Amino acid sequence: MLLNKIGEFGLIERFRKNIKTDSSVIVGSGDDCAVLEFDKNNYQLFTCDMIVEGVDFTLKDNLYLVGRKALGISLSDIAACGGIPRWAVVSLGLPKNSTVKDMDKLSQGLFDLAKEYKVNIVGGDISSAPKLTIDVSLIGIVKKKNLVLRSGAKAGDVIVVSGTLGGSIKGKHLKFIPRVKEANFLVNSFKVNAMIDISDGLLQDLSHILKQSKVGAAIFEPLIPKDKECKDSQDALAGGEDFELLFTMSRHDVLKLAGKNNNFYFKPIGQVMPEGFGLKVFDKDNNIIKLPVKGFEHF
Amino acid sequence: MLLNKIGEFGLIERFRKNIKTDSSVIVGSGDDCAVLEFDKNNYQLFTCDMIVEGVDFTLKDNLYLVGRKALGISLSDIAACGGIPRWAVVSLGLPKNSTVKDMDKLSQGLFDLAKEYKVNIVGGDISSAPKLTIDVSLIGIVKKKNLVLRSGAKAGDVIVVSGTLGGSIKGKHLKFIPRVKEANFLVNSFKVNAMIDISDGLLQDLSHILKQSKVGAAIFEPLIPKDKECKDSQDALAGGEDFELLFTMSRHDVLKLAGKNNNFYFKPIGQVMPEGFGLKVFDKDNNIIKLPVKGFEHF
Repeated sequence: MLLNKIGEFGLIERFRKNIKTDSSVIVGSGDDCAVLEFDKNNYQLFTCDMIVEGVDFTLKDNLYLVGRKALGISLSDIAACGGIPRWAVVSLGLPKNSTVKDMDKLSQGLFDLAKEYKVNIVGGDISSAPKLTIDVSLIGIVKKKNLVLRSGAKAGDVIVVSGTLGGSIKGKHLKFIPRVKEANFLVNSFKVNAMIDISDGLLQDLSHILKQSKVGAAIFEPLIPKDKECKDSQDALAGGEDFELLFTMSRHDVLKLAGKNNNFYFKPIGQVMPEGFGLKVFDKDNNIIKLPVKGFEHF
Repeated sequence: MLLNKIGEFGLIERFRKNIKTDSSVIVGSGDDCAVLEFDKNNYQLFTCDMIVEGVDFTLKDNLYLVGRKALGISLSDIAACGGIPRWAVVSLGLPKNSTVKDMDKLSQGLFDLAKEYKVNIVGGDISSAPKLTIDVSLIGIVKKKNLVLRSGAKAGDVIVVSGTLGGSIKGKHLKFIPRVKEANFLVNSFKVNAMIDISDGLLQDLSHILKQSKVGAAIFEPLIPKDKECKDSQDALAGGEDFELLFTMSRHDVLKLAGKNNNFYFKPIGQVMPEGFGLKVFDKDNNIIKLPVKGFEHF
């Protein structure tokens, strides 16, 4: 049986059933990061992301931006849990015909982003590989009181995104801003009930929150802030790799957020509903939009 | 300029020059693991290793053993620093034609080894890729007083290995035992001055100790314990992926080790010398053996 019969998420579920963890693991596989015991006031976050030439980028892309993306994806995962990124290791699979100049560009993009976010690159591994492959593993720290998971959304919450959607395929997937500052502003000032970063598409990633929180959702398509490169609502609803934050908070906190001075861009796009409601997207006339493919799966 | 002009280790050096870390990083890139501040009595260790189909294994190999190897390499790195492995994340790059059965075998090998070594698999990432690629990142804990680096070897130390060498190409590279128990026995009972795991070949990995400790070494080839599958001394001196421990201790501690009951296999193979001595290998008549290629480089 080929993998596409069970899909990427089916395979992940299959793995998860066979994994047992001890009491040091607060949250294992299944959220943006693993959450581990650390000290009295903090948890440790742990995440990894692999990008592969021909899947996540091509050799026509600027390798500086590819290196930047490799770390940025993991930064975005730490942000989605409300944490601060701290230490990373980088594994590189390099084709035999790679040049030193290529590697200088790639590493500079990665190192510059690390510097900007005060992340320590502390080690790595180099292997030969048929296609350029970069895997970054990142450890972060989160105050216990700031930890946000996918599982805390409550019916009545407002659903909010941090920026515009649908610009990924026009280049945002290489130039996105990991929303670490935004996430830290949110978790330090408000009660964020659930959060995820949009890597596989708004509907796909929202579905993870809904499933793990056992709730439904109403999304109002006209409210979705769209990237200037976004062509249609399908891109905004299902386009992957915008790497914006998608989160839910009480109405009370959303009103407070709207009134609090900040330099960030947050837009409410819908409401968390009881589980039986399912996931519905409404157009400007409040008619239900037939759902497109929810988002990206590797298989 | 192609990568093979500067080689794998040249590229690593090039990267390292551009990396700056803060005071939380005790040891960054350049040892078996990164060493990070953790709590009063312990450091945290952090390492990653990528294996790629066609480079580190083939699809003719038993995928159960391939999954086992993927984690085992990182366990061996934690062992080489004297630590205990704790939490791992796993990135998988999977060809489109992978089967569910393949993935069951691969994951079972990895999960079984994790269980044996009490390692928590806490997350991962799945991507499509042209060749099966597995990257494991592992966090371990080491008592501050137990930490062993490559840089502590002293002239006069005895050089010791744990187990037999030269069996890798006959299959040991898929079946090796990560020497976590052996390393913990050593660091809890003795003063180990320097340690590394043999992944690229005895001489290559010994060279890392020598360079970082600023010392030389005399190796007595007849003393090297050879795997029953080992055909010639070249395999024992330069064959990669035996994943045995290579370490140095004072004569006094080596005598104590010889007299202390244990179920492990440790053999002295040479002596640490002053830096000017360089690295020399002697045969049974005390003649210098012309050094073979030191070991494996990816480029």
